Amino acid sequence: MAKPGKNNLITDVAGISVGQAEDARVRTGTTLILAEKPAVAAVCVAGGGPGTRETDLLAGGTLVDAVDAICLSGGSAFGLAAADGVAAGLKKAGRGFGLIDLPTVPKSPIVPAAILYDLANGGDKDWGEASPYAALGRKAYDNASGTFRLGRAGAGYGAAAGAHLGGTGSASIVTRDRITVGALAAVNCYGSVYMPGTDAFWAWPYEIDGEFGGVRPPSDFSMNAEDWGAAKLNPSLGQNTTIACIATDAILTPDQAKRVAQMALSGFSRAIRPVFAPFDGDAVFVLATGKRALPDPTAATLARIGELAASTLARAIARGVYMSGR
Amino acid sequence: MAKPGKNNLITDVAGISVGQAEDARVRTGTTLILAEKPAVAAVCVAGGGPGTRETDLLAGGTLVDAVDAICLSGGSAFGLAAADGVAAGLKKAGRGFGLIDLPTVPKSPIVPAAILYDLANGGDKDWGEASPYAALGRKAYDNASGTFRLGRAGAGYGAAAGAHLGGTGSASIVTRDRITVGALAAVNCYGSVYMPGTDAFWAWPYEIDGEFGGVRPPSDFSMNAEDWGAAKLNPSLGQNTTIACIATDAILTPDQAKRVAQMALSGFSRAIRPVFAPFDGDAVFVLATGKRALPDPTAATLARIGELAASTLARAIARGVYMSGR
Repeated sequence: MAKPGKNNLITDVAGISVGQAEDARVRTGTTLILAEKPAVAAVCVAGGGPGTRETDLLAGGTLVDAVDAICLSGGSAFGLAAADGVAAGLKKAGRGFGLIDLPTVPKSPIVPAAILYDLANGGDKDWGEASPYAALGRKAYDNASGTFRLGRAGAGYGAAAGAHLGGTGSASIVTRDRITVGALAAVNCYGSVYMPGTDAFWAWPYEIDGEFGGVRPPSDFSMNAEDWGAAKLNPSLGQNTTIACIATDAILTPDQAKRVAQMALSGFSRAIRPVFAPFDGDAVFVLATGKRALPDPTAATLARIGELAASTLARAIARGVYMSGR
Repeated sequence: MAKPGKNNLITDVAGISVGQAEDARVRTGTTLILAEKPAVAAVCVAGGGPGTRETDLLAGGTLVDAVDAICLSGGSAFGLAAADGVAAGLKKAGRGFGLIDLPTVPKSPIVPAAILYDLANGGDKDWGEASPYAALGRKAYDNASGTFRLGRAGAGYGAAAGAHLGGTGSASIVTRDRITVGALAAVNCYGSVYMPGTDAFWAWPYEIDGEFGGVRPPSDFSMNAEDWGAAKLNPSLGQNTTIACIATDAILTPDQAKRVAQMALSGFSRAIRPVFAPFDGDAVFVLATGKRALPDPTAATLARIGELAASTLARAIARGVYMSGR
């Protein structure tokens, strides 16, 4: 039977650490998913209002097919600067993609990034021209370790999930044949993570061991197709987003990682309603740290990893809201 | 309260008719969704093994942004010929996209198409070089009307949904402000439409008035993350697929139709598990017949239509299997 890893966090995946940093005054934060070595990566962007960086590099057929880290941040377009701070930390460590091996030529750190919108959450955004995000990214890099806080932390620090507090969530799963899949999500969705009129998460069928409260929908549940429950009341374009990262220790090609990303999108669909709206910038990255060969038949194992990515992401989304308190 | 349309079929959308044709010996069939006038269209392909035609035309920034019909068919790659028969029928009717208005110059019928794999379902596929699909498409065109059969009919005639019979399903919804959204799906998925160990459809929260049997999951439901229930036992690449079409009477731009298609993919995710696997060719088309302006605010209405597309598609998928008999 598949079970969560030791900490039920994305860092249960060998080779992955996570660093977070927050600015309480600005009411925002950044989450960094760091690969100990360059990891094969992919992305799927499904929302109508994305804010991203270095995603073209992941489009396939490109020079670089492995990344040093994935950076998720609050701050809307400003938050993309968090990756600058991560790049600074990676430069100091001598990491990055290099074509020229000379001590005077730095390598290029590869840090795809995505942001969520928290500019209207009441924090002090009067930072003039000096946004806090590069510093948050730098601090997150220094903080990277095998454990991290959920809920009001990192990229989800200032987030809202529908009408409720949003947050950062994570979960993991280990299969009987010892493949590990982890997920991390910063949940700032337009839609609701709760079934209308209930305290049950949409993701309830995927819950393991009461990890997000164990509430089940009433047996007579029914809803109006237009009832979104606790979705945001006043959506605006580009003001909502769930950004996420999947990690696995499996050896994947870039194309296989892309397939896992596509399958992982079902995790959004099963945890949030509505989702992928014009107001959402939903995106999911995939990192494969390449520790374990895919058991044969390869395509069937890939389908398993993709489905585990979807269910683990659904759990991470629910946990992000649950751990923030309702 | 939003309610299904008169027939709970995609043809409840003004301007849409559906024609179907089957070949019992070959154990296959074709479903045509016909727009009475060229309809704005879009597509999202999410499966790992698609079989499609004229989808580049729907990529955006192209010459043609409206289509005459969408053709869904069994027959794997051979089934793409069903669109040839549809094109023949449209030519006879003088329909298609034309740059040159001369009686000797036919217009070009625009018929995007997608197929599902039913070549191994035990039907007689020994058709030599003369596949039945162009004739099935032609017949479906002649049959197009406001009602049609569900279950073992049309493109879903020879389909399998996980370990159960697949089929063709449809559903519709009409909002209080009189926007109609309809969905049609030919369900041949690798994954299961049932929650593991139960007779409850994954799509149960979306069911209206017992339209697919009214079964609810047990209150103590839990599952192993690797238990797929009644998924297919021996998947092979490209042998599974759910192909679908959404229609609405709303006036949509091509970009708006694309957003609806992206949101509609959640209907697959909420009705089938696993989905978008390497073995699946899952794709959804969107047709906008342009009868009703989007109520303000436009983006919020678009989100409503997208979510209705997702829930109506989830219902259509469950109905396709339910109407085929378990």
